[in-house]
Order: sequence, then structure tokens, then C-alpha cells
Amino acid sequence: LKMSGKGNLLIGQSGGPTAVINASLAGVIHTATEKGAFNNIYGMVQGIEGLLKGNLLEVPHLTSKDVKLLAATPASALGSCRYKLKEEDYTIITRIIKEQDIRSFIYIGGNDSMDTCNRIAGFMKEEGYEISVIGVPKTIDNDLPVTDHCPGYGSAARFTAISTAGAGRDLEAMKTFDDVAIMEIMGRHTGWLAASSTLLKRQIEDAPHLVYMPERAFNLELFLEDIKSIHKELGFVFVAIGEGICYENGDFVGIEGSDRDDFGHVTIALSEGPASYLKKVIKDELGLQARYNRCGTVQRSYSESVSDTDQKEAFMVGEAAVELSAAGVNDKMIILRRENDEPYHCVTDTTPLNKVANLEKMVPDSYINKRGNQVTEEFYRYALPLMGTERPTFYRFK
Amino acid sequence: LKMSGKGNLLIGQSGGPTAVINASLAGVIHTATEKGAFNNIYGMVQGIEGLLKGNLLEVPHLTSKDVKLLAATPASALGSCRYKLKEEDYTIITRIIKEQDIRSFIYIGGNDSMDTCNRIAGFMKEEGYEISVIGVPKTIDNDLPVTDHCPGYGSAARFTAISTAGAGRDLEAMKTFDDVAIMEIMGRHTGWLAASSTLLKRQIEDAPHLVYMPERAFNLELFLEDIKSIHKELGFVFVAIGEGICYENGDFVGIEGSDRDDFGHVTIALSEGPASYLKKVIKDELGLQARYNRCGTVQRSYSESVSDTDQKEAFMVGEAAVELSAAGVNDKMIILRRENDEPYHCVTDTTPLNKVANLEKMVPDSYINKRGNQVTEEFYRYALPLMGTERPTFYRFK
Repeated sequence: LKMSGKGNLLIGQSGGPTAVINASLAGVIHTATEKGAFNNIYGMVQGIEGLLKGNLLEVPHLTSKDVKLLAATPASALGSCRYKLKEEDYTIITRIIKEQDIRSFIYIGGNDSMDTCNRIAGFMKEEGYEISVIGVPKTIDNDLPVTDHCPGYGSAARFTAISTAGAGRDLEAMKTFDDVAIMEIMGRHTGWLAASSTLLKRQIEDAPHLVYMPERAFNLELFLEDIKSIHKELGFVFVAIGEGICYENGDFVGIEGSDRDDFGHVTIALSEGPASYLKKVIKDELGLQARYNRCGTVQRSYSESVSDTDQKEAFMVGEAAVELSAAGVNDKMIILRRENDEPYHCVTDTTPLNKVANLEKMVPDSYINKRGNQVTEEFYRYALPLMGTERPTFYRFK
Repeated sequence: LKMSGKGNLLIGQSGGPTAVINASLAGVIHTATEKGAFNNIYGMVQGIEGLLKGNLLEVPHLTSKDVKLLAATPASALGSCRYKLKEEDYTIITRIIKEQDIRSFIYIGGNDSMDTCNRIAGFMKEEGYEISVIGVPKTIDNDLPVTDHCPGYGSAARFTAISTAGAGRDLEAMKTFDDVAIMEIMGRHTGWLAASSTLLKRQIEDAPHLVYMPERAFNLELFLEDIKSIHKELGFVFVAIGEGICYENGDFVGIEGSDRDDFGHVTIALSEGPASYLKKVIKDELGLQARYNRCGTVQRSYSESVSDTDQKEAFMVGEAAVELSAAGVNDKMIILRRENDEPYHCVTDTTPLNKVANLEKMVPDSYINKRGNQVTEEFYRYALPLMGTERPTFYRFK
């Protein structure tokens, strides 16, 4: 147990990993080391769940080469968790924070994690203990409010756009054999990531021809109509669907059972999912040969398609968290504020944690077409810069 | 209809696409143009199936920028097919070849396509028509005999290795929530691609912990034993499985129905697949939470992880095909012959088409461990150079 005026920094990672969540971690460690604002840096092993077990790691000195390597390493290097704090847990956390002289608590996570941060800040205030609690946004789902977008989204969007464009060319080449390909895309209750599948589409033949997002009620009849009409037009149909698409009545498409995590969320990824189901329906109802791709966790952990913009910003929000924390800012989440579209420019800012905790930002109406089966130009303007500065182009005969 | 001493070149692409099949096409077009060995270059639109309908494309002049762009474009730019020639089709093909004054017939494809080439060469010989028929190898399955490896495999292996390493880190980070992740990997009846999932594994925690290939009979009991034991040791298990794993009796694992293509192959990709099935078994038998990733056609069409070695060789086999064809070589497939492991060096050579037609090269025993659940050092020596000269490394605490 070390004591001093400076105190120690505690850093943790939470929720589903991303390809750049370690860039934020690298930003925190690098900046804290550079500034010398804290005596020690402790890492929670497996997030808050590890903290409760006293499972802390003394972060070693990282060379600048290590910082770069860590920033380029996918998934959460400290380990993550999906754990909803119980009332009795707060006593334990309060005790550990005091014992370890933690004066800065930085947690990199999504909506649920921001709730955790907000509650810890409240508990410490009640205890009269001086601490800075800062949330750092992270989620491929891009569903945190207030911030322009979430670090992690750009890289997942890049992977989604490139994999869709490639698999679309694959289907087009094989159109005398296959009819329909479905790409199942992560994103839980929002369609941000599904929408990003369109980012390399330039002409009618390019995938995806259809995109379905959870923001619009899924209508099986209209879906089959859409498939039939595109198939008639092109001879092949590439469909992107958000994993969380729901019927009008709120039931998920093709999800049986009801496994739920600690936060009460249906764990779509652990079920069969909508693509597998829709593939069968397309075969049965339209007699069309369909296959599906479900890249699953590869969408959030693919290290060779990190968006340079996303990686830079993920590092930046980690940096900002340490700077504000050292300045005594408390109970805030770092956000990205877009200053300009072209050239794209974002800066960091903050928002109170209770303005983001447990809230979800949906894809706005203006980003989805009227029929609910494609994105609009406005979505491109928003999302294109996020997938990075270099965008692949392909050759096409004629 | 143009006639001259030189005649025309006809080029086609066949079977499942790869990320570098267009690099071979670019090699053919570039070399044929440079050499000026033919009057015109015609492309079959949708392979032999398009040829039968007289669906040919006059290949336009490609600038060197176009050649580069085409080489980096995933899937078959001319269109592909899975079509087994019927006896009556040969008359049509013979007629078109004569009418179009085709003196060089180059077909980029896998085992089935080499059979097609071999038979066309035979028919033209019977007709007394002077033509050079050359097969160019292509398949992510890497299952063509004689050649050291197949263009297309290295890039798919790179994607498989990187996606497995990343998704493995993802599972490790989430081990307090998920128990098991299954990666379903293409490759039909051979385990070459499934084996490549190991190429970035450096230590015990790295994915995959287990790899199952079709070369060994799948035993569900031993599989569950393996899962249980790794889970006990590490707290999480990452399993890579070839899509074509079979039980001792020859039945595919988790594949219902029996959709078959023209060649009589079971179309695994169109069925539910083994991962979805094994996920359920793991839950039911071991009570472990499992999820699965099935990247599907993304494995063969991902453009941002092309192996530089693979792309270079794919171009090289296209180049060699034109040079030999212009020299009058007939009824041969281009192969890659490895001259050296370290530094890695491969050269092109040829083999008679009937030595490869319809044959499959399995992963040899020496590349698979005794229990049939992991690869050996010998496999690494063989496959590591194929995934490219630059290999990602990740950071790990402690």
C-alpha cells in the first residue's frame, strides 16, 4: 500500500472488446506515465468483476514500442467482463479504492459500463472520498448518446464494409450457382454496424443490395418481396442484416430461447441468429439458394483492418481521460465532437456520465430510406470518414 | 471473326473464387499483351457455362494501373461457375473454339476445372485442331496434388490466422462470460485451411487450442473430452474446425440434408454446418456457453489481408501459363515447386493435367498430431511462408 498526495490510477476495460480498445488503454498508460501524475498505474484484471476479487495488475513500464504494439493488439488486454454491480459490491469497491489510494478511476466501456462508473462516482462522493471517475467510450455498436461516434465503431465498420464488398463480388462471380447471400452483422439493438456494410458500395451491382436494421420493424413479407425483385433484376442478391432485427411485436427474428446476460440483454450471439433462419425461409418461400456469413466476434477483433482514424481517436480519448482526471474532473465520460465533415475533424470533450448511462442511440430516420431496406446519402457523409483515410477500390470489366 | 497465324487467347475463371484469382487473370492479360503473342484476348463470362452460351467478352486494354487494380480485386472478375460438362457440350465448345480461332485456352480453377481442361485438350486433339490448353491452379482449399501449394490458399490462410488470433483474444478477454468459441473454416474435404488457423499461435493461451480436420475421423466423445480438459486448464477454449469434418462412418458432422452440386460434392456451405451443431452439443453435454463464427465466403474474398507472397505467385502462374501457351505447350497445369524453405523460394513448373484432374491432396499425417486435435511443427514450416512476409504480433501483459 503506497500513499502520497498523487495517489494511484486504476484503469479497467469492460464489455465486448473492439479492435482499438487497447489503443485507448495505451493512450491512458502512455499519458499517465508521461505526465507522472500518479504514483502507480493499476489495471483491473477482467474489469470490475476482477476488481471485486482484488485482482489487480501493476502496469509495467511500457517502452514506446510496447505502447504501439499494445495499441495495435485486438480485444481487451486487461481482460473484460459483463457484470452488473450488486448493492453489496459497492462496499467492497469502496474499500479497495481507499486501500489502494486510487485517486483516478478510468473505465473503458459501453452504456452498461458508464452506468457502473456513474454509480461508483456517486458512492465515493457519499463517502467523502476525493476521486476522479472518468468513462472512456468504446463500442462497435456505436450506440452511445452525446458522442459523435464511439471508438471501436470505425474499425468494425471498416471490416464490415470490406468483407461485404468482397463477399458481394464473390456472390456476383458465383451467380449461376448461388442466388442469395446473407451477412449477419453485430450491433445488438441498433443498426449502425449493419449500415456500415454499404460504405464501399458504388453502383447497383455492388453489395449490399438490401440492408435491414433493428430501427425498423422487420416485415417478412416485404423482405421476401425485396429479395425477389432484386433477384429478378440482377440474378443475385446480397443482404446485410443487423443481428437484432425485430418484428413489429418486438420479437427477435430467428432467435429461439431467451438467454440473457446480467443486464437483461438477450444474448443474440449465443443463439442461432436471424441469418440462419432467413436462409431457410428464402429457400422454402422463394426456392432460391441462399448461404450466410456470420463473422461473429471477428467483426470486432480483426487486427489487419483497423481504421487509422479510429485508432488515433481511441488513443486520443484515453489521453484526454488522463489529462482531465489529473485535473480533478469527475463523473464524466469523454466524447468525440465533430468539428467538420470535409476535411473530417473531431475533438474530445466531456459529458456527465448520467447523460449516457444505460442509454442507446439509434440510427436516425434520416440515415435510413423510406422502405427501410437501404441507407441514405446522409449516412455516408456521417460514416465514411470513420472507416479510415484509405478506402479500397476494385476493378470491374465494362 | 478474326483470323491470323497467331490466333486468339481465351481465358476463364472457374469454381469458388479466391482473393487472388484476379491476380492470375491480371498475370495472363498483362503477359499476353506484353508478348503480343495473340491477336485478341477473350474472356469467358461465367466460365465454361458462359462459353457454352457464347458469352465472351473482348478484354479491353489494361493500363498498368488497371493491371494492379485488377490483381487486388477479390473474386472472379470474369465471373465463375460450377458446371460439369456434359458429353453434348463438347461439340458446342469445339465449334466456338474453331469459330473464334482460339489457339490458347487458359482456365484458372481447382480440381474440377482441371478435369474440364484435360477433357477439352483431348477433344481438340481428336479434332486435329492445334491449340494449347493450360490450367492455372487456384483454390483456397489447397487440395490440388503435385503443386507445392495453390494460389489463393496463402491469402485465405492469412485471413484465417488473423481472424482466429483476434477472435481468440476476444474470447480470452471475455472468459468470465463466454466459455467456448468455435471457428468454422472452409476447405471442403481437406483441413489445409483449418490448419492455417494456428499460424499466429505462439503460446498456450493463443487460439486455437484445438483444431479438427477432415483428415481424421471425428469422435464426438474425444472432442468433448478435449474441450473439457482445456476449459479446466485455461477457463476458455477456442476450437477451429474444418467445415468438412466427418465421423468414422463418413457422415458429415452437423450437416442435414444432402444438397449436392453438379460434381456430386455435398454443398456444406449451404447447410447449417458443424459449428452451429457442436455449439449446441457443448451446451447440452458440458453445460458450457459456446458461440461460433462462420466467416463463410469472407474467408476467400477479404481484400485487405492478401498475402503478398500469394498475390505475387498468383500473378506468376498466370504469366507462366501465357509464356508456355505461346510456346505451344499443351494439356498441362502450371505448378509451384518449392526450392527452399528459408528463405522461402518457389518457382513455376508444369504437370500433365490428368495428374491433377479430380484428385484431392489431403493434409499429410506428419502435419497433424497424434490425437488429431492440433498441427505439428512441420506444418508451420510448410505454411508460414505462404501467409506472407509480414506477420502481426500482439502485446500481452506479464
